[in-house]
Amino acid sequence: MKIFTYDTTLRDGAQSDTVQYSKNDKLNIIRLLDSLGVDFIEVDNPVYNPYDDGFFEELKKMKLIHSKIVAFGSTVKVGSSPENDPVLSFLSSYSDCCAIFGKAWDLHVSDVLKTTKEENLHMIAESVKYLKNSGKYVFFDAEHFFDGWLSSPEYALRVLETAQSAGADEIVLCDTNGGTFPKDIARAVNDVKKHVSVRLGIHTHNDCALAVANALEAVSAGAELVQGTINGIGERCGNADLSAMIANLQIKSGFDVLPDGRIRSLTGISRAIAQITNISTQGMPYISRAAFSHKAGTHADAVLKNPATFEHIDPSLIGNKRTILLSEISGKSAILPIIRRVVPDMDKNSDKVDMLLAAMKDKEAHGYRYEAAQASFELLIRKMLGMYTPHFEVDLYKLINEAKLGEECKSYVFTEVTVENQKEIAATMSDGPVHAIDEALRKALRPFFPSLDKVQLIDYKVRVMDNRSATGSTVQVLIDSTDGRDVWTTVGVSIDIIRASQEALIDSIEYKLLKDEKTETR
Amino acid sequence: MKIFTYDTTLRDGAQSDTVQYSKNDKLNIIRLLDSLGVDFIEVDNPVYNPYDDGFFEELKKMKLIHSKIVAFGSTVKVGSSPENDPVLSFLSSYSDCCAIFGKAWDLHVSDVLKTTKEENLHMIAESVKYLKNSGKYVFFDAEHFFDGWLSSPEYALRVLETAQSAGADEIVLCDTNGGTFPKDIARAVNDVKKHVSVRLGIHTHNDCALAVANALEAVSAGAELVQGTINGIGERCGNADLSAMIANLQIKSGFDVLPDGRIRSLTGISRAIAQITNISTQGMPYISRAAFSHKAGTHADAVLKNPATFEHIDPSLIGNKRTILLSEISGKSAILPIIRRVVPDMDKNSDKVDMLLAAMKDKEAHGYRYEAAQASFELLIRKMLGMYTPHFEVDLYKLINEAKLGEECKSYVFTEVTVENQKEIAATMSDGPVHAIDEALRKALRPFFPSLDKVQLIDYKVRVMDNRSATGSTVQVLIDSTDGRDVWTTVGVSIDIIRASQEALIDSIEYKLLKDEKTETR
Repeated sequence: MKIFTYDTTLRDGAQSDTVQYSKNDKLNIIRLLDSLGVDFIEVDNPVYNPYDDGFFEELKKMKLIHSKIVAFGSTVKVGSSPENDPVLSFLSSYSDCCAIFGKAWDLHVSDVLKTTKEENLHMIAESVKYLKNSGKYVFFDAEHFFDGWLSSPEYALRVLETAQSAGADEIVLCDTNGGTFPKDIARAVNDVKKHVSVRLGIHTHNDCALAVANALEAVSAGAELVQGTINGIGERCGNADLSAMIANLQIKSGFDVLPDGRIRSLTGISRAIAQITNISTQGMPYISRAAFSHKAGTHADAVLKNPATFEHIDPSLIGNKRTILLSEISGKSAILPIIRRVVPDMDKNSDKVDMLLAAMKDKEAHGYRYEAAQASFELLIRKMLGMYTPHFEVDLYKLINEAKLGEECKSYVFTEVTVENQKEIAATMSDGPVHAIDEALRKALRPFFPSLDKVQLIDYKVRVMDNRSATGSTVQVLIDSTDGRDVWTTVGVSIDIIRASQEALIDSIEYKLLKDEKTETR
Repeated sequence: MKIFTYDTTLRDGAQSDTVQYSKNDKLNIIRLLDSLGVDFIEVDNPVYNPYDDGFFEELKKMKLIHSKIVAFGSTVKVGSSPENDPVLSFLSSYSDCCAIFGKAWDLHVSDVLKTTKEENLHMIAESVKYLKNSGKYVFFDAEHFFDGWLSSPEYALRVLETAQSAGADEIVLCDTNGGTFPKDIARAVNDVKKHVSVRLGIHTHNDCALAVANALEAVSAGAELVQGTINGIGERCGNADLSAMIANLQIKSGFDVLPDGRIRSLTGISRAIAQITNISTQGMPYISRAAFSHKAGTHADAVLKNPATFEHIDPSLIGNKRTILLSEISGKSAILPIIRRVVPDMDKNSDKVDMLLAAMKDKEAHGYRYEAAQASFELLIRKMLGMYTPHFEVDLYKLINEAKLGEECKSYVFTEVTVENQKEIAATMSDGPVHAIDEALRKALRPFFPSLDKVQLIDYKVRVMDNRSATGSTVQVLIDSTDGRDVWTTVGVSIDIIRASQEALIDSIEYKLLKDEKTETR
């Protein structure tokens, strides 16, 4: 049986207090959602957003493979007619599919609209009819439906009947405040089915940590369309996480959700959208790195014996993969697969494994974390095993960072490196100190290693390890680099953020040079 | 009806890939949980953790008001006897309450323990009996119970019956892999009740975004104890969020959960534990700042008319509060309450409100975010309204940050400030540049403003605003300060992390001086 997916990352997701989209962000998210095979993609209405930037013009030109764009708005305002309503005019002129929300809770009719229940029904009917007469496919979002159904079921159901009679093609039941429990969702949907025959959708929020459960409950009771946002971003505690719902419905419940073969791109696309929305996927169901990672020694051991022992699905089904985490309580069996990437025939009982485990734990005690920074960890293994001599040394660097009142801040860096007994000096100026350090290092090394020109830094993250020591805290810097072929992550740790950044930069360059050597000797 | 709470933040929570506790962290978390009124607090077993540090000795000396400490371990190993087992020896010597886990899924018996089903039952029976003979109150955690019940229900139930016959006081049903759906949880718990009469507990994980829903379903089916972690930290995608469960059960479902009056401390205690575990509570149900914050203009308007329109509970019940967020789509009604903190009688239709809204939007376009940094926003309002002259100016600062090969990095700062036409110069040296800037600024200002000695920086956060520009990204720095009476947050934004930090530091000091003036004139 088919369950339809309706994404509102660009509309309800934009209500998140941490999210802001540029025009390109929005276009990129639409491309990603289309390639995932989401059925409907909701976009906001320019009337609500005075900062529009030609997004809708560009969107019109986009060719989508699978997804349909749905333009979102509300019913007419109290006392006005659809013909004079800017939102409805936009909707009717714009997309083939429109979604409009109307009030389904009498409290909102009296306290927010400040009008009569009959007038609210009239507004809904007129708005839906207007869009149907313009030839649109119409979703009616029954805002606060579940709160309305619990307090005044008869009126809430009349709202749905009114929308259906006016021609709405689908009716979406919304738990707008996120306060409804699964048992009430099931009772309400069962009641709705007695009164409404068009396709039903479900829109839930996570204020009680129940958004995904509520949507599943509605599907069990007969809803055939799920609304949500990728990674669950959204107002307050967020919307239902569409990524988790897709996996729950398709992989775990056997529904037909995405087009054939697309579910393997779920992890990659969810992570790409997380990067655009600038949120962490830390610990998110299904698509996070942690979702199939194993830390404790006994769990990691068991997973290596039989993955089903600690994994509820095969991570590769959704394009994720297993990670054995390195940590103070993980044992040799966790560290061994990584050592074997460097020394394929390393014996588990070798003293060297003990030595590397001790070295890693010592580094971790100083704030290093290698879960993400496996390039730095590989360098550490090689150094400890005497399999690696650094290609260069940074003899010294000096940063001068200064500002006068009313002037921009400037950063000057002077650095000296040694490569095979040859010294090279470089100096740079930039508007940021870390950028200046990076430039100086590359400038000094370029004469020796021209391949460094291909290396780009694509991500820079700072984590304050112990916030409570405030400006005296230890800082961890993670840098993602690419040479167009591979991506690698390195780490630096120091009380000094400049020093931590430099350390991660040096590791990034060393790793690239090591990679080049390996390629040459193949 | 009473539902018991069982916290495993210190044990299962420590399996999170981002969490590491010091001894003091653990003791502080226990104090907080006790003051919240959690019934049971689980602690790990020193046998599993070679880095123990006297924590158990200190714990023995603690006097708890409400909570009972539960020491955690496993059944004996295959082929050994309880008398020779280091974990069971510790448990029997340590706490009055013990929890031991045993295998309830035959797949684990054959593939991980590599023993017979009968031997597994024998190990469980012997271990429980041994602890009961030592006079302990025993929780038996049936690991992977739901997976076991779905594949071999008869054996899974025999495991429970064995533990009960051996004397277990409570049996906790665990969805260890987090893959079970609510409908199966309900069926399983109903089946268990036919075979077991001791109190049942539920332990769930969030791999399908269903941890809280699954625990509620188990409670509906008859479980009387919920296990979870504060803020839902834990292995992979985390455990059930105990904070959300407490609110769902007590506020929304009417169960008797925490001791009288304690639920109002839920938000504060959950946030304090988040700080210790160094995780963000961003968007978390109930206890996050976002949980009752309203961004969009129409929502904020409606909430100001009637809070129930967009809030599923009164946030003050759990010690949280409403926030009207400032953002590019929020209108005058969102910004007005904050302006009125400065100018109580400000008219909504004043041109000044439009001017402040425009100024805020301009700052936001440059990367400033005032949702958290309301002290910086108050300074901005005062400056724009001409109600405020800075107490000092920083004429210049110069940072020299340098390192030679093999030596520690050093940061020297030289700064000049002007206070009422008097110039003061100060220089400092530190091992971190931000710390050096902070020290220099205070040193220069101290002769004029001795009250600054009372100001402490208690949190320092760095957020890279656009990770994709790597080391050239704009950086936002947030600093929390306190003078022992109030806590305030300030923001700085720049491509230069040093400059952004300095800006937030200057705002923090200005805000303190402004606060002192207001106190004097009262």
